Amino acid sequence: MKSPRVIALAAAASIIASIAFAQDQTAKPTLDDDALHADAINYFQALPTVQPAPANNAITREKYELGKMLFFEPRLSSSHLLSCNTCHNLGMGGVDGLETSVGHGWQKGPRNAPTVFNSFFNIAQFWDGRAEDLKAQAGGPIQAAVEMNATPERVLATLKSMPEYVKAFQTAFPGQQDAVTFENVTRAIEVFEATLITPGGRFDQYLEGNRQAMTDHEKQGMRLFIDKGCVSCHNGVNVGGADYFPFGVVERPGADILPESDKGRFAVTATADDEYVFRSPTLRNIALTAPYFHTGKVWDLSQAVEIMGSAQLGEDLNEQDVTAIVAFLGTLTGEQPQIPYPMLPPNAPGTPRPELMTPAAAVVNSGG
Amino acid sequence: MKSPRVIALAAAASIIASIAFAQDQTAKPTLDDDALHADAINYFQALPTVQPAPANNAITREKYELGKMLFFEPRLSSSHLLSCNTCHNLGMGGVDGLETSVGHGWQKGPRNAPTVFNSFFNIAQFWDGRAEDLKAQAGGPIQAAVEMNATPERVLATLKSMPEYVKAFQTAFPGQQDAVTFENVTRAIEVFEATLITPGGRFDQYLEGNRQAMTDHEKQGMRLFIDKGCVSCHNGVNVGGADYFPFGVVERPGADILPESDKGRFAVTATADDEYVFRSPTLRNIALTAPYFHTGKVWDLSQAVEIMGSAQLGEDLNEQDVTAIVAFLGTLTGEQPQIPYPMLPPNAPGTPRPELMTPAAAVVNSGG
Repeated sequence: MKSPRVIALAAAASIIASIAFAQDQTAKPTLDDDALHADAINYFQALPTVQPAPANNAITREKYELGKMLFFEPRLSSSHLLSCNTCHNLGMGGVDGLETSVGHGWQKGPRNAPTVFNSFFNIAQFWDGRAEDLKAQAGGPIQAAVEMNATPERVLATLKSMPEYVKAFQTAFPGQQDAVTFENVTRAIEVFEATLITPGGRFDQYLEGNRQAMTDHEKQGMRLFIDKGCVSCHNGVNVGGADYFPFGVVERPGADILPESDKGRFAVTATADDEYVFRSPTLRNIALTAPYFHTGKVWDLSQAVEIMGSAQLGEDLNEQDVTAIVAFLGTLTGEQPQIPYPMLPPNAPGTPRPELMTPAAAVVNSGG
Repeated sequence: MKSPRVIALAAAASIIASIAFAQDQTAKPTLDDDALHADAINYFQALPTVQPAPANNAITREKYELGKMLFFEPRLSSSHLLSCNTCHNLGMGGVDGLETSVGHGWQKGPRNAPTVFNSFFNIAQFWDGRAEDLKAQAGGPIQAAVEMNATPERVLATLKSMPEYVKAFQTAFPGQQDAVTFENVTRAIEVFEATLITPGGRFDQYLEGNRQAMTDHEKQGMRLFIDKGCVSCHNGVNVGGADYFPFGVVERPGADILPESDKGRFAVTATADDEYVFRSPTLRNIALTAPYFHTGKVWDLSQAVEIMGSAQLGEDLNEQDVTAIVAFLGTLTGEQPQIPYPMLPPNAPGTPRPELMTPAAAVVNSGG
């Protein structure tokens, strides 16, 4: 059986074959907007306006509020300095704006922080998809030595020391004898993160039928995005994030952008086919989340589009096309979540003290 | 002319002289609430319900919104990792919960971060009062090598690179030819910080006439707080923060709590009288802001009260008294500001890149 990736690549090849025709089209001053809209709703879906629920983890107000506290809780890190929000800053498109994230002891992590916004819609989490859902993801950075450098034991000792947290867990997970568990920590964070959706952008308005929501230039960019084949990896509700693809399928970019040492999904599956394979990132809010790629080496969105053209499609996109595609990508910026900063309980006598020392221990399950 | 500090100490001595009488009073099962309330409104003031304005820096909605963005803006630091909120966390009583703050390169700063809440009411800022107001304070950590490690030039290049910031400055400071100045950065932050007031706590309710807002035990604590002499340094609207006092005036605490190397206000005034003199901290929200003292070496509020008793008052407070005083201090927790997390503009092509390297340069104007 062919994997969805292979099928998607085949679809890309078929799209690429039609490029000559498509380029003729883009040369026209006006687009066939009916055809574009039909293609758009075929390839993409607007973000839902009704909140979807994570599997086996119903969204409740109590879990949401607890998850929000935990998302901003620096005491989940051993230093008491780093929270989920440090690398997935809710005011910065859900990222940290660094090449690769910096964690415990000022250590630089191995990969660029993916945005937390709309991450619920990804097929799996991290660049290599090694966490099947947000719940599984949330437990990773907490324990990674180069990120928050904590242990489940330390996290539970911290949370159990504060009566407000114990009560919040009991309320969020009623009927459980011991509600303060690491599993519930990740479940609450998953619920909060699942709500971090950015609907209402002009792209979504267009998909929903408002043909005036995008300019002609942006529509030309969307036409190119579809016709050149970008859409084969970046489609669906998240305009990406739905499957795994090799980076450098046509032409390997430079070693700074795609270093040999990080073989991507190969580390998860140990399958030769998965060398340098990564989950395609969502392009939603991409204008907010520089720098780009898993290495974070590219700061300019135009340059990222050019690299994708040559590396993935074998296309030397001209400046005009790149500009139009970048204009289209700007329509993927949605309404950012408005989150009141949560109040966190004060330390209690039994709360573990911050530990700033950097362990010599090896890096575990770290980064992106 | 005697300094206010000397006058305050004289007042303390007079209060201490009356302790024998006061102790008789506290032995009673009930307090004279009329007398206590009269003393309370004599020594303390409730936080204002009308927002006071910083000198020469009127509060406007535009300055507030800009100041809020800047307060949460990690790109004011050279690493793009640290914001004002890192050390003055609005969800944690306006502090970071560390002994001393950690900044650029994971360096540990020299002093415990004072709370930003109600800091507007302090006589001056930092433990040694070296910044005359919040505006002057705000410029310090941005430039300190162990904190945000930036320069005014870098900050302005960063802010000027982003059109949204340029517009926000122009709107906040209308009529200025070049509104993006370091002075205006600090003015906007001052305006935001001046609004971080925590009124409505039970202490304030009591001061405003609601005699039932505090329990008998808490009232006993307040009686002791006044009669033992704590009130001589911790009075007024901020229950502290209004003047400078020697630490260890009766008995020097251990070198871990009061190390010889940090001579406090002496570094500001170069006056022998100011050796080991510090601005008294506000006790508002003190139950939220462990660890205590400028060294942050004491995590337990009871222990901090005991140390203050012996070091400042020459009193070995008994456990019952300490417990009552701590109960009283709990009433100083006010309503914490509810702040919607601000959206920050995306990087622009000219935005300086994050710089993670730690300079060998000397520490400038750092910490607390």
